[in-house]
Amino acid sequence: MTLEQTILDVARRAKVASSSLLSLSTITKNRVLIRVADLLLKEEEALQSANNKDLQLGTEKGLSAAMLDRLRLTDTVINSMVTALHELCALPDPIGKIEDFVKRPNGMLVGRMRVPLGVIAMIYESRPNVTVDAAALCLKTGNAVILRGGSEAIHSNLALAGILKKALISQGVDEDAVQVIPVTDRQAIDILLTQDELIDLVIPRGGESLIRFVAQNSRIPVLKHYKGVCHIFVDRDADLEKAVPLVINSKTHRPGVCNALEGLLIHQDVAAAYLPVLAAALAEKGVELRGCPQSTAISAQIGSASESDWGTEFLDLTLCVKVVKDFDEAKAYIQKYGSRHTETIVTENYSTAQRFLGEIDASAVMINASTRFNDGGQLGLGAEIGISTTKLHAYGPMGLEELTTRKFIVYGQGQVRE
Amino acid sequence: MTLEQTILDVARRAKVASSSLLSLSTITKNRVLIRVADLLLKEEEALQSANNKDLQLGTEKGLSAAMLDRLRLTDTVINSMVTALHELCALPDPIGKIEDFVKRPNGMLVGRMRVPLGVIAMIYESRPNVTVDAAALCLKTGNAVILRGGSEAIHSNLALAGILKKALISQGVDEDAVQVIPVTDRQAIDILLTQDELIDLVIPRGGESLIRFVAQNSRIPVLKHYKGVCHIFVDRDADLEKAVPLVINSKTHRPGVCNALEGLLIHQDVAAAYLPVLAAALAEKGVELRGCPQSTAISAQIGSASESDWGTEFLDLTLCVKVVKDFDEAKAYIQKYGSRHTETIVTENYSTAQRFLGEIDASAVMINASTRFNDGGQLGLGAEIGISTTKLHAYGPMGLEELTTRKFIVYGQGQVRE
Repeated sequence: MTLEQTILDVARRAKVASSSLLSLSTITKNRVLIRVADLLLKEEEALQSANNKDLQLGTEKGLSAAMLDRLRLTDTVINSMVTALHELCALPDPIGKIEDFVKRPNGMLVGRMRVPLGVIAMIYESRPNVTVDAAALCLKTGNAVILRGGSEAIHSNLALAGILKKALISQGVDEDAVQVIPVTDRQAIDILLTQDELIDLVIPRGGESLIRFVAQNSRIPVLKHYKGVCHIFVDRDADLEKAVPLVINSKTHRPGVCNALEGLLIHQDVAAAYLPVLAAALAEKGVELRGCPQSTAISAQIGSASESDWGTEFLDLTLCVKVVKDFDEAKAYIQKYGSRHTETIVTENYSTAQRFLGEIDASAVMINASTRFNDGGQLGLGAEIGISTTKLHAYGPMGLEELTTRKFIVYGQGQVRE
Repeated sequence: MTLEQTILDVARRAKVASSSLLSLSTITKNRVLIRVADLLLKEEEALQSANNKDLQLGTEKGLSAAMLDRLRLTDTVINSMVTALHELCALPDPIGKIEDFVKRPNGMLVGRMRVPLGVIAMIYESRPNVTVDAAALCLKTGNAVILRGGSEAIHSNLALAGILKKALISQGVDEDAVQVIPVTDRQAIDILLTQDELIDLVIPRGGESLIRFVAQNSRIPVLKHYKGVCHIFVDRDADLEKAVPLVINSKTHRPGVCNALEGLLIHQDVAAAYLPVLAAALAEKGVELRGCPQSTAISAQIGSASESDWGTEFLDLTLCVKVVKDFDEAKAYIQKYGSRHTETIVTENYSTAQRFLGEIDASAVMINASTRFNDGGQLGLGAEIGISTTKLHAYGPMGLEELTTRKFIVYGQGQVRE
């Protein structure tokens, strides 16, 4: 088979499988998930030997220690996959739920039933545990899934695919419901992205360049976020005792992730009083501060920011600091430099807080809470397949419900239109 | 200005306007709508003289009588726009509504607030009343809108844009919230479709070729439907007294629209008894029937279908007829030839009805109701900006809610992540 035939074959089989998933009961879906968990433990040795092949090839190719680390299927990683599968079983199944049921004047009952999207393609980089996470979330929501992981993880991913297929077959489910693209050719992605008749959604996860590539080349709808440039605005009416831990937690809890703090805005009326305290606390945690002239004049611990620092996603212990005149300047700054990911205000003022919630455009807008809470688990979704900073279909963390859509259903008694 | 500069300028101004719309009250938005209605009546004469220019140019260009008819802003058309505006005022404003409010274990309150999408581009053909309908729906939902109508309606559309702007200004709203692209150049669409940094959604309305062009060239998410190939499956347990009016209404109430019936499937066990009655009723209404060999053998009123008839959107008094062995064959036929628009079963059997609702994949799935009900107004949405047969974001008729998205909001008291 040519590469194109291989990809088309995968996509066609996924489409066929997706149709059979429509009538699957929650019980069967959960049984598959439990079976996957069991097999992960039972076949741990074979899994890790496949993973070793990837690690060896990766070492030969000169992958960085950090990349090799992400690639490694340690006992801890495998156990966390098993735990996640059990947690997913416990979550309610959104499929089949009927919402917004109304009786129309002519007696028809009209509702909206949650149904799967159909076929989802996941395109992601090194971490092989995404293979199991994504497959499990798609299966729980009745979607067929096509998985395209990084080439450096191909042996691990194929071994995981083997386990997933075994679990599907054991419960009489079409094994094509989960497929790993068996080739590492980069061109496979181009072909995949043009199958808009067969695939309903593409979710890319990885670096900004991968995501931009997918977004620009896909004929299929894409749910994505490029980056997280998150801010905290310490308002004139902020409580300093809240502001300090919030800024520290948002910046230093895990600096390398998308919901980490990248910019601190502070109202000019409290800058002189609060900035020295905040700067000292941040410096103590090893954070390098780059600020506007007003802020450097207030605290010697703040260095000068260059123009390119504003709006940068540092993913590191570096933070921009800017003194702003008022709410409007903070809002304008966030609009210009933010990435519509997470924005927090620290304030005790009721009206200012409400204005911030209403007027700031981001997937999560928070009052007196750490930016680190913008996460499916933390916000109560139970599980997360990614986060969207585009507004169509999903905005913010995507849980099970975001992998579904709603169709109209009508219970009639013979009604015709007049 | 070059064409590209013109389009970019429109899009940039729309983006700026969209931000100011975020804090607009429902009262102000409704006042603008009422003002538009008043101005449509007050300036009817000027409007019709602009429309006459389009009609004259259209006549010279040799437009068909049907096209000229769609282009004409008669008193009736203007009055229906006025009525629609008043009805839209009466509908609840979805913006700002907070849903799924939960308290998290750490005490944070998490909710999802309905917010506008941002900037919407409408690309449509001849009917100038779409200009007012679309602008009104976008305004009510706090979205800025860029309108690109057919070149043959440009004078009418610019006159309507003038009225819309006057109404916006009268209530102190940014007039750039509604903009009609002032040039008729086809290339304007290409430029528009690449502005994914400025425009959040594109909705094309018109013929299949326009919609395909937009879908294939857009970097911006598109909500669309290509066509409506709708079916009725008359099940073995159908009530003939319901089946006849349902089929007649679905097929002949308005044959030229997307929710009209294009295919009739009938269970083999009742074909001999029911088909002659159905065929006679349809023939009496002037419907030409094209059927499978089994159906032509049953009724002389049914001609032979050719292969290309299956799945055709006739938009006319023509109907395909097929006898099927059972539910599964009906389902397979619908999956193969349907367009995921509207599918109806006629049955008195509880289990068969429930199975149809669950297993048929279409934006509206109905039991014992006319396919003609798949319409925003009929299903209770109050207003409709189009219909989607893709599953992302919206599936089926799109009302006000489908022009919004939800952001996460968090009311914290200083919580940090452990």
